[in-house]
Amino acid sequence: MTTCVASSVDVALLGCGNVGAAFARLAARTPEHSTAIRIAGALVRDLARPRPGAVAGRMTTDPRALLDDAPSVVVELLGGVEPARTILLEALARRIPVVTANKTLLSRCGRELREASAASRTPLLYEAAVVAGVPFLGTFARRPYTATVSSLVGIVNGTSNFVLGRCGSGGTSLARAVAEAQRLGYAEPDPRNDLAGIDASEKLAVLLQHFAARFVNPDALETNGIESVEGIQLEHAAELGGGIKPVVHAGWTNALEAFAAPAFVPAAHPLARVDGVDNAILMTTAHGRLLLQGPGAGPEATAATVLDDVREIAAGWAGVHDATVSPCTVAAPETEWLITLRGTRLAAARDVADLLASFGVFTHRATAIGASDGHQSRSWLAWPCARPRVELALSALRNASGCEALALRALEVPA
Amino acid sequence: MTTCVASSVDVALLGCGNVGAAFARLAARTPEHSTAIRIAGALVRDLARPRPGAVAGRMTTDPRALLDDAPSVVVELLGGVEPARTILLEALARRIPVVTANKTLLSRCGRELREASAASRTPLLYEAAVVAGVPFLGTFARRPYTATVSSLVGIVNGTSNFVLGRCGSGGTSLARAVAEAQRLGYAEPDPRNDLAGIDASEKLAVLLQHFAARFVNPDALETNGIESVEGIQLEHAAELGGGIKPVVHAGWTNALEAFAAPAFVPAAHPLARVDGVDNAILMTTAHGRLLLQGPGAGPEATAATVLDDVREIAAGWAGVHDATVSPCTVAAPETEWLITLRGTRLAAARDVADLLASFGVFTHRATAIGASDGHQSRSWLAWPCARPRVELALSALRNASGCEALALRALEVPA
Repeated sequence: MTTCVASSVDVALLGCGNVGAAFARLAARTPEHSTAIRIAGALVRDLARPRPGAVAGRMTTDPRALLDDAPSVVVELLGGVEPARTILLEALARRIPVVTANKTLLSRCGRELREASAASRTPLLYEAAVVAGVPFLGTFARRPYTATVSSLVGIVNGTSNFVLGRCGSGGTSLARAVAEAQRLGYAEPDPRNDLAGIDASEKLAVLLQHFAARFVNPDALETNGIESVEGIQLEHAAELGGGIKPVVHAGWTNALEAFAAPAFVPAAHPLARVDGVDNAILMTTAHGRLLLQGPGAGPEATAATVLDDVREIAAGWAGVHDATVSPCTVAAPETEWLITLRGTRLAAARDVADLLASFGVFTHRATAIGASDGHQSRSWLAWPCARPRVELALSALRNASGCEALALRALEVPA
Repeated sequence: MTTCVASSVDVALLGCGNVGAAFARLAARTPEHSTAIRIAGALVRDLARPRPGAVAGRMTTDPRALLDDAPSVVVELLGGVEPARTILLEALARRIPVVTANKTLLSRCGRELREASAASRTPLLYEAAVVAGVPFLGTFARRPYTATVSSLVGIVNGTSNFVLGRCGSGGTSLARAVAEAQRLGYAEPDPRNDLAGIDASEKLAVLLQHFAARFVNPDALETNGIESVEGIQLEHAAELGGGIKPVVHAGWTNALEAFAAPAFVPAAHPLARVDGVDNAILMTTAHGRLLLQGPGAGPEATAATVLDDVREIAAGWAGVHDATVSPCTVAAPETEWLITLRGTRLAAARDVADLLASFGVFTHRATAIGASDGHQSRSWLAWPCARPRVELALSALRNASGCEALALRALEVPA
């Protein structure tokens, strides 16, 4: 490379958990031709706790002391809003470049951080915040002729994807699948943010800032977690030749519309084959559709991406920040739906379809499964319509039949 | 963006074909916040030929006159080795940055061009040379911690992929599928380089320079084109639950091994769903597997990528060149094989398997198809072995049975 690269970089590392330890290990093995990255100091919660040997440099519980050492870059791996927000705003005010993998912070305070970065002309990089193992945010920020993205659909929570996959193929219970994910290191000790869809909606909010220049509070996004998916829906999805995946979707050709929720994915959809803890994003641009797939998390993949961000700053890259993200309202899109009925005495399929149609919910494929406990179930795929219409129709179905009635969004195979 | 970007860029455009015209059209529609890109002059073969209006600037048949104008960037869209090679070496010697989409030139003269670029510390960018619509070469060049690629497999020739797809699913003849591709603008008027696999092996050579720092003449790579694929092989591939795709593969964990050839791709392989003119690359890195998929060619997608390269140079990116690509011998890998026999009197499946096994070619799946003309055919998937072993075995089979015996490489589903 003939890129002008600083000969060594002093990093102030905030947070020494799994990713922080992997970062320190990887930084110690600097690739040939590359800048040496030195961990000058690290912020920890508890000085008394034993640390893996790889973290050199001084340990402190005082973030101000770290900034006073004037590091080349602050790397934030704390997670959550505070104290990360206060420390990073202070770093940017002091013109110390920031690398963060913190989607919670970016999704909720991204506007404030971008403005601070632009005001002090100081880089703020966050490649590892979404699909941590696949570099694409910086790439598209540099390349405006390619980055004409008008919509995206993706799987951005590997934990949910793994757990739902185990429930679907193996018939495993949610609790058992979560325990397995924890055993394999795929799920946090407290997996609630993953299972409730909050992690996915935060990542979606970061993607909207990045690709649509729109700032949406993740709490304003339609968000559902995989914990709401029933086994019978997984069975019917398979009968209909597809599966249920934890999906984020957004489009902004006209008004911004978006959701983060488990959805029926037909077998021919590019996301249907994204299995295990893999993440993927399918983007529609002016020049075609791009699919990017790879590791979504994991200490090693995340640490490599964070280190590359540090190296890009050392090489003089000024960052992907853009102060012009605008607050924006978001609508729930009209999509197809997977509608499932379960009960001891199901009405005739034709009567159900007629009732749904009377609410403007028109079905085009159906499947039926009889169960050993005397319960029966049926599912339909419905043509695109808005959520309120589906909810009214389901409510009427429950009242008319005494059945349980469930609905999930369904993706269409891109043309 | 707070990136330091030159306020305007004067481009010397070499070649005003489909991509050149698209480049001129797109450059005229500069995105907001972006550098204005002006076509200061264009090299054409024939001044008398009418041009689409979008190419402004002066036209000339004299490349030296264009360089004498001291453009900010030379954009080379001529294709082929000469005169492109001479002009670009001259441009680099004069420290004029170069953007090219020319895989033929890079694959054959990449070492010379990289050395010229390094010697004059002048950028040489070529993002559009492979998978033109998906930016990834520059991304990985900047990010050494992620770019620990040890092997790759991909589909890099959209024309072949489209044509083989039409032959496979529709039972269309090769000639009809090629004519259809030409009608749709997916194939050149002279598609020989695509159909013979030469375009794919040139792109593979560029990928080897970029990811493996190895310089291999494309003529030294095992290269087969889709024109060698028989209809019966497509039928058997479908029977075996897969398809035949035009594949490039390379691995360099130990010795470098590579091939560019149509291969059996099982349905569960990530490349199985890469259809139409799409391209894709699956890379194995130290931190996981990354799949990148999108438009492989097309004037608009290619022009956007070339323009983004120009913009990156304007923003101060010094390029992805590395003078240390080393000449390297290449071996043909041991892979699985799809072996097909066709004839009027086929030997018993067991006898064929025994004969193959006596040459060290061990089969693990078989299929049989009877044809209306009295011919029968059978296929086997064989466990990984080297090409000479397979060729000896097939030769023995032909002698023993009087049958036609065919073989294609076969991919395994990544673990």
